[in-house]
Amino acid sequence: MQNIKSPFFNLAIEEARLASNRGEVPVGAVIVEAPTGRVLAKAGNLIEKNKDPTAHAEILVIQAAACIVGSPRLENCDLYVTLEPCPMCAAAISLARLRRLYFGAFDPKSGGVDHGPKIYTHPTCHHIPEVYGGIEETLCSLLLKEFFLKRR
Amino acid sequence: MQNIKSPFFNLAIEEARLASNRGEVPVGAVIVEAPTGRVLAKAGNLIEKNKDPTAHAEILVIQAAACIVGSPRLENCDLYVTLEPCPMCAAAISLARLRRLYFGAFDPKSGGVDHGPKIYTHPTCHHIPEVYGGIEETLCSLLLKEFFLKRR
Repeated sequence: MQNIKSPFFNLAIEEARLASNRGEVPVGAVIVEAPTGRVLAKAGNLIEKNKDPTAHAEILVIQAAACIVGSPRLENCDLYVTLEPCPMCAAAISLARLRRLYFGAFDPKSGGVDHGPKIYTHPTCHHIPEVYGGIEETLCSLLLKEFFLKRR
Repeated sequence: MQNIKSPFFNLAIEEARLASNRGEVPVGAVIVEAPTGRVLAKAGNLIEKNKDPTAHAEILVIQAAACIVGSPRLENCDLYVTLEPCPMCAAAISLARLRRLYFGAFDPKSGGVDHGPKIYTHPTCHHIPEVYGGIEETLCSLLLKEFFLKRR
């Protein structure tokens, strides 16, 4: 578990809570321009609402931040997300050239950073962000557990 | 090399050509509703035009087809693409529950199906499409080679 306290991470948790309220798996993400601390984008999952299998919080903030910056490369930006990114999102973070990835709960079932295909461990991965996992792990896991418990 | 001739694959090649004409890496994709043969979506890369690192042809057709079908799951659909999908797109194809993946050129440098993280080989991959690679391989590779040669 990482002992990193960050107001940006709290924004991601807030987005996860909002996602839960609208019936989406509670995952929230934020992208911050590192030199200025400006929040470029924040989002929670929108898979069900948008009928879009790619509408994970990470993809949504990458698309929004790239649009704001006016470039497909977010080299000076960091991404905060409440759950270990899946392989799709881990690879998108690499393609976007994000500087750092801070994530909350580990995801042994569907994660793609520390689990499964471990996206950043292959020589064909052309950009590897700095990764900090396990931030506010207990809280982020609890949000997910509560959501799935209610749905049973 | 797979000896599969398909009008759908020709549509993907046409989208790759259009992408090249607008300065994008020539990759084109098509999604077809398998039982009816209805083309739900076709697209080429739009990374540079849209300033979006996730705007690969595969992601664009998945988003468009899911929107048309009104569901994040494309269970009865097949995806045709001129290049081996990268890890992001390979994982998105799994998340979208696509039935079959037909791809053209193999991509040892950045592919995610037969190369790199080999997305479909992990127990954490919850849906594995049927995969047919190497379709019109020579033509699909040539399109890419010509594009990069012109840019040097």
